[in-house]
Amino acid sequence: MSSFRFISRLNTEPLLELCKNTFTRSLSSQTTGTIGIVREESNLWERRAPLSPLQVGQLVKQGNKVLVQPSDKRIFIKSEYERAGATFTDDLSEADLILGVKQLLLERVIPDKTYVIFSHTCKGQPANMPLLDTCIQENVRLIDYEMIVDENKARLLAFGQFAGISGMINILYGMGIRLLGLGYQTPFLHLGLAHNYPQLAQAHGAVAQLGPYISSDGIPASLGPMIFCFTGSGNVSRGAQSIFRLLPHEMVHPDDLKEVAENGETNHVYGTVVDAHHHLKHKGGLNFDLEHYLKNGSEYTSNFSTNIAPYISCLVNGVFWAPGHPRVLTDTDASSIQAGYGRLLAVVDVSNDLEGSIEFSRMLTTLDKPFAIYDSSKKQYHEDFSGDGFLISNIDNLPTQLAIEATTFFGEELLSYIPDLMKVSRVKTLDDSSIRFPVRSAVVTFDKQLTPPFRYINDIRKDK
Amino acid sequence: MSSFRFISRLNTEPLLELCKNTFTRSLSSQTTGTIGIVREESNLWERRAPLSPLQVGQLVKQGNKVLVQPSDKRIFIKSEYERAGATFTDDLSEADLILGVKQLLLERVIPDKTYVIFSHTCKGQPANMPLLDTCIQENVRLIDYEMIVDENKARLLAFGQFAGISGMINILYGMGIRLLGLGYQTPFLHLGLAHNYPQLAQAHGAVAQLGPYISSDGIPASLGPMIFCFTGSGNVSRGAQSIFRLLPHEMVHPDDLKEVAENGETNHVYGTVVDAHHHLKHKGGLNFDLEHYLKNGSEYTSNFSTNIAPYISCLVNGVFWAPGHPRVLTDTDASSIQAGYGRLLAVVDVSNDLEGSIEFSRMLTTLDKPFAIYDSSKKQYHEDFSGDGFLISNIDNLPTQLAIEATTFFGEELLSYIPDLMKVSRVKTLDDSSIRFPVRSAVVTFDKQLTPPFRYINDIRKDK
Repeated sequence: MSSFRFISRLNTEPLLELCKNTFTRSLSSQTTGTIGIVREESNLWERRAPLSPLQVGQLVKQGNKVLVQPSDKRIFIKSEYERAGATFTDDLSEADLILGVKQLLLERVIPDKTYVIFSHTCKGQPANMPLLDTCIQENVRLIDYEMIVDENKARLLAFGQFAGISGMINILYGMGIRLLGLGYQTPFLHLGLAHNYPQLAQAHGAVAQLGPYISSDGIPASLGPMIFCFTGSGNVSRGAQSIFRLLPHEMVHPDDLKEVAENGETNHVYGTVVDAHHHLKHKGGLNFDLEHYLKNGSEYTSNFSTNIAPYISCLVNGVFWAPGHPRVLTDTDASSIQAGYGRLLAVVDVSNDLEGSIEFSRMLTTLDKPFAIYDSSKKQYHEDFSGDGFLISNIDNLPTQLAIEATTFFGEELLSYIPDLMKVSRVKTLDDSSIRFPVRSAVVTFDKQLTPPFRYINDIRKDK
Repeated sequence: MSSFRFISRLNTEPLLELCKNTFTRSLSSQTTGTIGIVREESNLWERRAPLSPLQVGQLVKQGNKVLVQPSDKRIFIKSEYERAGATFTDDLSEADLILGVKQLLLERVIPDKTYVIFSHTCKGQPANMPLLDTCIQENVRLIDYEMIVDENKARLLAFGQFAGISGMINILYGMGIRLLGLGYQTPFLHLGLAHNYPQLAQAHGAVAQLGPYISSDGIPASLGPMIFCFTGSGNVSRGAQSIFRLLPHEMVHPDDLKEVAENGETNHVYGTVVDAHHHLKHKGGLNFDLEHYLKNGSEYTSNFSTNIAPYISCLVNGVFWAPGHPRVLTDTDASSIQAGYGRLLAVVDVSNDLEGSIEFSRMLTTLDKPFAIYDSSKKQYHEDFSGDGFLISNIDNLPTQLAIEATTFFGEELLSYIPDLMKVSRVKTLDDSSIRFPVRSAVVTFDKQLTPPFRYINDIRKDK
């Protein structure tokens, strides 16, 4: 780049063009083409794009043509993408590769194209089976970001940290309302939801600003020490902790929670990170081993409800969970807590497996209505912030609250996969070894059928 | 005060004490005593107090004793009031004069005491008649802040400007959600509710921060110019305008609205102040006269729905209205607007007369659920931000969102009435001319009955 700029300054534009073309051709002769970016239409709040204007600019410089469907909802506006060299058009039929974020409307699917989206089809999700069927029928090559993983099955393209960040900002405010409902004015009320800030930087400022209010007797002593518990140690948990750590805080070991709950201070907050090995025990007495656990979850039991839950004020749940794995909190645990066994005020379930690691996480809350109170005695959600139960928030599109940062971060990663994604749109067969593994194995449909690794979806659908 | 400080610096404390006592006695020999401040229990969100700690400090210096009922919800905390010399106790039976903000719980009313509150009884409000009856029965001298007025009936103690300020901050965010529901990302989404900021200063900062986003193509051109209309020119309207004027804006005359709506810009917002004389016409052709209008509202008609409403994006309603007066918007007007006659997106009814100046303002929204969509075709409220209708917000406790500033401002005014209020607690008859008019005429109950100026309440109750 710097040499380009140097040439440009010498005003030798024809030479520059020559260099650019040579560069482009030699670097990626097969891997440039026309890239389309769809208008997101899956839900009211979706404002993300797969790529930011500056990232689109990089693709254009590499020799790609980028078409963008107009949207008044996208967080980056038309003029920014146009400045980067993109063309605005509703018609993406010219595109080789079409990028989106979330599910497509069925009527928008163009036959014979290659699409990359979060399709939410790979667990056989009933709501999205029509989309999957349309892709098969219309000879679409569907690639799912969620399936672009490394050899350890870790996702390479994900928004998880932004879910953690937004979820944490939201729940701090939620605790403010809940505590007001219980009779306590606290500094937490003086924070907004994550999307109430133009950018993450301002949200950071707002959270940090609560510090002095907390330090100067802002948390009523009668409430006792406020303990935030983070489960899991992945992107979600780390994102949530990055917000929490902006408050005056002290991190404590899970073993010390009882002591902290009984004798802690109220002029700062406490945090504890509870990882799998802290609360999961093998029923047969084997030493804890994460790999073994992930494959044999049902052989394990959790002591979260007895050793952790009674002492914490807020649970920020970011664990990986699969059916059969022990839950972090069951319905029974919730009833015990509500009956006075513990001091839990709020749960933010960022993991968001319905009836999963948090069994009573049964109903999604939304960005319009981010909080509910779960009354375990009636197994019901209600909206009376002074009523029985505890606050729950489990929103499934948290990263869109921080649409600028989420898009920029995601697009940065996505850029490096564009050449391989482009290849998928061009190859005759998927066996083409020029496509790198993480992308090749994420192709869900090809040649009007599910690819072999995804044929299990048919079995799931038959079972339903 | 400055001379006190001078003496104090010379460290002549005994002299200071002597001066203070002399000063106190000479200034208000009959007007000091014991003042109680109640715990507010009327609603979940009430965090205001009638006086701030520094104001309590002034009363203590003047020789009063101040008792404060403990509350974890009050925006100023115990240690601040204690530092000012107040005593915390649940028992206010020693107090001569008891101050609150909103309605009392019946079981808290102490017989034979003098209370000053916003009782919301003077329009015969059914919900508060039990409180009025209790005051009469228990020989309480009830004084209502709302009735402390000057010779022009203008209220001398009011929170109106804070209602305007909060209402305006809220509706800007509300428009952000509504516009998102209609498919538009706008900078308005990146603002919180008024209580999401620790103090008004931070809210000011957050509103001002939207400026550059609005200026740089932040409002989609397809939306057209955004016009905010402020009705009324009192405290509410002025408060709301003080927030609006933090945005890049241009104020325009009501006569120019059509032109602005058709040819205005989208890189700033427009404001117009519509005062009574702009839209009200005497049916018999008399020239507009405010005093005549206030007494003979039914002789007037409004052209708001034809000359103003079709061109504005947001109505901030702060008019004074009484039954019989022409409405600003009727049900019929709402239907026309929704049928496409106009571009109104949102209404914030700060005046908040149910079925009053805004006829379809039928249901209160709340600080937990600040917004609803009113679908005039079905005459129904709903919560689908992408659905038919327009956004409405009409919250009746807006000033508590800015509890610090509202308390401080109100208390500052209240201080000057304390001596007269104290006198009410001590006189044998209300005719005592030592009590100044604004206070004397605000006493609602005395000697186990309604005072003469408030006996009309009995008539209202009989009519119901």
